[in-house]
Amino acid sequence: MNTFGKIFRLTSFGESHGKGIGGIIDGCPAGVEIDVHEIQQELNRRRPGQSKLTTPRDEKDRIEILSGVFEGVSTGTPIAFAIWNKDQHSKDYGNLKDLFRPSHADYTYYQKYGIRDHRGGGRSSARETIARVVAGAIAKQILKSQGVTFNAYVSRVGEVEINKSYLELDLSKTENTDVRCPDPEMAEKMTNRILLAANNGDTVGGVITCVIGNVPIGLGEPVFNKLHADLGHAMLGINAVKGFEYGSGFEGTKMSGSAHNDEFVSTEEGVKTKTNNSGGIQGGISNGEDIYFNVGFKPIATIFKDQDTVDKEGNSMVINPKGRHDACVLPRAVPIVEAMAAMVIVDHYLANKTTRI
Amino acid sequence: MNTFGKIFRLTSFGESHGKGIGGIIDGCPAGVEIDVHEIQQELNRRRPGQSKLTTPRDEKDRIEILSGVFEGVSTGTPIAFAIWNKDQHSKDYGNLKDLFRPSHADYTYYQKYGIRDHRGGGRSSARETIARVVAGAIAKQILKSQGVTFNAYVSRVGEVEINKSYLELDLSKTENTDVRCPDPEMAEKMTNRILLAANNGDTVGGVITCVIGNVPIGLGEPVFNKLHADLGHAMLGINAVKGFEYGSGFEGTKMSGSAHNDEFVSTEEGVKTKTNNSGGIQGGISNGEDIYFNVGFKPIATIFKDQDTVDKEGNSMVINPKGRHDACVLPRAVPIVEAMAAMVIVDHYLANKTTRI
Amino acid sequence: MNTFGKIFRLTSFGESHGKGIGGIIDGCPAGVEIDVHEIQQELNRRRPGQSKLTTPRDEKDRIEILSGVFEGVSTGTPIAFAIWNKDQHSKDYGNLKDLFRPSHADYTYYQKYGIRDHRGGGRSSARETIARVVAGAIAKQILKSQGVTFNAYVSRVGEVEINKSYLELDLSKTENTDVRCPDPEMAEKMTNRILLAANNGDTVGGVITCVIGNVPIGLGEPVFNKLHADLGHAMLGINAVKGFEYGSGFEGTKMSGSAHNDEFVSTEEGVKTKTNNSGGIQGGISNGEDIYFNVGFKPIATIFKDQDTVDKEGNSMVINPKGRHDACVLPRAVPIVEAMAAMVIVDHYLANKTTRI
Amino acid sequence: MNTFGKIFRLTSFGESHGKGIGGIIDGCPAGVEIDVHEIQQELNRRRPGQSKLTTPRDEKDRIEILSGVFEGVSTGTPIAFAIWNKDQHSKDYGNLKDLFRPSHADYTYYQKYGIRDHRGGGRSSARETIARVVAGAIAKQILKSQGVTFNAYVSRVGEVEINKSYLELDLSKTENTDVRCPDPEMAEKMTNRILLAANNGDTVGGVITCVIGNVPIGLGEPVFNKLHADLGHAMLGINAVKGFEYGSGFEGTKMSGSAHNDEFVSTEEGVKTKTNNSGGIQGGISNGEDIYFNVGFKPIATIFKDQDTVDKEGNSMVINPKGRHDACVLPRAVPIVEAMAAMVIVDHYLANKTTRI
Repeated sequence: MNTFGKIFRLTSFGESHGKGIGGIIDGCPAGVEIDVHEIQQELNRRRPGQSKLTTPRDEKDRIEILSGVFEGVSTGTPIAFAIWNKDQHSKDYGNLKDLFRPSHADYTYYQKYGIRDHRGGGRSSARETIARVVAGAIAKQILKSQGVTFNAYVSRVGEVEINKSYLELDLSKTENTDVRCPDPEMAEKMTNRILLAANNGDTVGGVITCVIGNVPIGLGEPVFNKLHADLGHAMLGINAVKGFEYGSGFEGTKMSGSAHNDEFVSTEEGVKTKTNNSGGIQGGISNGEDIYFNVGFKPIATIFKDQDTVDKEGNSMVINPKGRHDACVLPRAVPIVEAMAAMVIVDHYLANKTTRI
Repeated sequence: MNTFGKIFRLTSFGESHGKGIGGIIDGCPAGVEIDVHEIQQELNRRRPGQSKLTTPRDEKDRIEILSGVFEGVSTGTPIAFAIWNKDQHSKDYGNLKDLFRPSHADYTYYQKYGIRDHRGGGRSSARETIARVVAGAIAKQILKSQGVTFNAYVSRVGEVEINKSYLELDLSKTENTDVRCPDPEMAEKMTNRILLAANNGDTVGGVITCVIGNVPIGLGEPVFNKLHADLGHAMLGINAVKGFEYGSGFEGTKMSGSAHNDEFVSTEEGVKTKTNNSGGIQGGISNGEDIYFNVGFKPIATIFKDQDTVDKEGNSMVINPKGRHDACVLPRAVPIVEAMAAMVIVDHYLANKTTRI
Repeated sequence: MNTFGKIFRLTSFGESHGKGIGGIIDGCPAGVEIDVHEIQQELNRRRPGQSKLTTPRDEKDRIEILSGVFEGVSTGTPIAFAIWNKDQHSKDYGNLKDLFRPSHADYTYYQKYGIRDHRGGGRSSARETIARVVAGAIAKQILKSQGVTFNAYVSRVGEVEINKSYLELDLSKTENTDVRCPDPEMAEKMTNRILLAANNGDTVGGVITCVIGNVPIGLGEPVFNKLHADLGHAMLGINAVKGFEYGSGFEGTKMSGSAHNDEFVSTEEGVKTKTNNSGGIQGGISNGEDIYFNVGFKPIATIFKDQDTVDKEGNSMVINPKGRHDACVLPRAVPIVEAMAAMVIVDHYLANKTTRI
Repeated sequence: MNTFGKIFRLTSFGESHGKGIGGIIDGCPAGVEIDVHEIQQELNRRRPGQSKLTTPRDEKDRIEILSGVFEGVSTGTPIAFAIWNKDQHSKDYGNLKDLFRPSHADYTYYQKYGIRDHRGGGRSSARETIARVVAGAIAKQILKSQGVTFNAYVSRVGEVEINKSYLELDLSKTENTDVRCPDPEMAEKMTNRILLAANNGDTVGGVITCVIGNVPIGLGEPVFNKLHADLGHAMLGINAVKGFEYGSGFEGTKMSGSAHNDEFVSTEEGVKTKTNNSGGIQGGISNGEDIYFNVGFKPIATIFKDQDTVDKEGNSMVINPKGRHDACVLPRAVPIVEAMAAMVIVDHYLANKTTRI
């Protein structure tokens, strides 16, 4: 199943060292002005080679729209797109052909399919997320007319953590730092933490926080497709994600009900909640408050150290991969988190149009 | 969308104070011996009134199979079932007709649909999970032939936490305690914590850990439907869930890659990993090791204290609900977590039959 | 897959001699006034025992709504319903347990599933269509507010055919005759044709024509889910249907393009077509003209004559079924055709709400 | 919804005068040897310019595989492909920008989406079927290992009809004639009929018959997704199709049950039916006999004669299109019918793997 979404649907394709990465967006409403420059900017936030924190692989990742847009406007027909692969060094992976890299997808792909394209991780490469960023960028453009905003940022690298709520941060500053942390002081510490790992041939994980503002009230299906369940599903589908929590999250599960409940108040702007432990979602449905959640990313599995592994025949081997890789996935994952969030919100936004007669 | 699953699909129905709760299971393979007694036992683990820790509402929750089973065996046609409502006190809710209970689904349902069945929470009641338990019980019966095991237990109540891995616990003891914690000493502390909350008219949250053993290698779709993404989706769809993490989870995101990676070793039983930070899933696909994950539940929103709220017209009000409710959702949620896990695994198990020619 | 529709979805269950027939309608918009009496009237049009043309089995087929309707109005949650079986004579089928009735589903069910509920045809019985009639009745109620009308009638029995377009008939007279033909003279001939077959222990097929009026412009998805493709799919899924054609149909394929094309004209009521060979659908999308189509039904397979067959072990046998059966499916199939048409139209009507930003 | 199929799924994209036509095949099993040459041959059967009967537009229609195939074998990941547009004369369509061609999709697209790519019909062009042919070719390659065969042929052009069952024809001769009729004498008459229409600037319709051999017993879902319902859905989704009938079809609806029923006989090769009015499908499930059906195509709407129409503002206009078009869609539609049939069969073949435990 390489399709995501029910009404606004992305079906994606492509391998790391194949011809390219791309997808088809079906169900995009007609009449949306598609700003290709903005899509490209989102891809630039994700692409390698953008800063000293990221792999020197210099992938330009230029988007080409193949269908569905006529004179700059979506026509209601499928929007296909591709980003052609350019800077692949397939030879770097020749020695990995018959080996399973620890904590990668090599072993399970091989067991599941009986065959795998080993070059650069094939389909399991994080290059696959390019298609998500494109579809998310278009989802954002649809939602912009509703005023919906998406702001993700790195809130923890390893043990280096911002100990503030998003409400205390100026989220407009996230893009000012390579690490994509809106707190400049913490950004510097995070940067140093990543460089430390890189210098050791090692890697480091962390957490991205995402805030969605101005979500219309009423989005979400209240049983199996609660809005947070679909957001969690989207985030857990991103490479390297280990956990998801929304609103008060795991910390909130330690509170008493009387402390945790969000009391309603009548304000000039309508009904509001005094607190927002619910994270903008009650009974699986958005209530108009900010939606916020955390996504935990494991340290990247590609390290430049000797590790034990086995080959296809089950022989014990030592592996020490070559290649060009990030030491921390977090900074480049920020636009991916936003993209997946936008796809979930736009899908529920469209679905909600059929809720009432 | 009241349907869960792609091949083994549950579509559920029912409100707390309507005629009953039920569902249709479509895609159940033909030839499965359906043990109705076992289904009933799973319902008994979920039902109210089973111990001093649960609400005194005495709902017998007897299952009735309506179709799809002939002479004790599934026929491949839809298995419909119902659990008829019996012990409802709708009058208890009369005073809630026009009020929105804080941190409940009342406000958002009303905003989304323009109408709601307020009696007992209507469709948003946790009684809805009855249908999940039935479908999960059948999923378990299908997987039993493959040796797959499901063991969930309460690992934390409020701040009272088992500080041991599941590997150090005897999971066969979980059902020995009302609180469903396999460590007898911690079980007693958790029980006391719940009773303390109950005595205060308050509530408390916590964490359920679930372990799935003997999962066949190769389950999971590697992009949007990674096995852990579908498990997370399933868990986050359960009422009151705030977070999901698998394998090393959020703690693992603090580790370095060299410490986190699971090296492969060749053993007499085939390829294994030395450690299992991956939680049995790599690249979204099961690798044959134990799958384990944590699910965080918020404190129940129904507390017996005065709280501020508003009514349908936006007038400020004070609410103090009556009715009969648990002080902690955790003990009764254990079978629900297992049921949702079983539905995800059986769905991927069936889907995987089409992976190779 | 016992689910029909994408947004307005019916999932059905039940066997001929099980506890009942029913279903769950998911995706019905909130706020629809559900007229149970009207649903019952549609069931009465389908039920056996309604006239001398139908089987003397006297099935009352009373609908019971189980969920999703509160104070007479749909709440947006699943509408479950059941029609409990009453007048089953399972013993009539005991001798069919190990035999395959010619041109029935017995052999293929057994081959597919390895097990079958032989009593009354089990799931393959036309009693299954009860669920369709209920869902279709609700679909009609939703569409009534848009002015959409559904008029099906029997246009041919065996060789006895109305040789008039629907435009020359008074469709309000369809229900005046047992055979459901709006032309009284032809109705009598059709009735005699059916009674002739019945007296011979034989059966007869024919054609139902259906006209849908006042369909909003723009319904239908133009590639795989053309409106007529989804209508055809719906009709071909009804028991005993052998063919579907819309607009000019197979006869139209004999015409030249210059005769077949529907020229556009500007009128006071907007753009119209001079002719309507397109049957109200162009490029898979409704154009505002009447939609009309024909559905061909084979003669019922249950005849009261000796026929050769085999048993489960492949032994040659002679079969001569007992039981109570119609000699012609057409009169009772009229409401089923309308119901399936209404489900298709309402599904596309709802889907179309997401077409434009 | 530009996706076809449930397990083996084609999502297609592209407009007549855009960058190209293509698609993503998701759910193709791993391990299938993909013969690109065979795919190209199927495209050549469909492409314009192949004979004197088809438009002189010389579209090479070369397939490019973009992903999912590694060293000639499917990997289980999505197979994306494109056929780049080359020989488009967009200027031919400039004068159609604001006009609605009669019996085309122009008017309904415009009404539905509020915008349309008018060049060459945009998405509504029959060039869209290129993607179907590619996916069908791969479906055939999967099914070849099961011995399943697909043979479609032109059985009628206008009134010129083969009055023989497929059993009396040598279907290996279909490709010998430009018109794709296996009876050489009738082929010549059909050819003359098409040329007559072309010389008049007019067009002609007809019927394609398709025979599927060696279908495994047990394919099809017995309620809404009967095998013939899904075949009918697939065929009615092809441009210009007006009707579908299978087995005895509409003629069979004139027969009595005693004449129509297919009695079972025990043979050395297992259970067979004496006749095959069921068209290889009983109760919606394949029974191992040949599946055969007819598909009716209307005359192409593009004629080179003056016709009345309106423009976007509703003004009356006369239209007389230029451009290069076939006078009859039938010969080139033969591979499309086979392709859609193969997609339906492979989808049910894969789905059926999950039917029994």
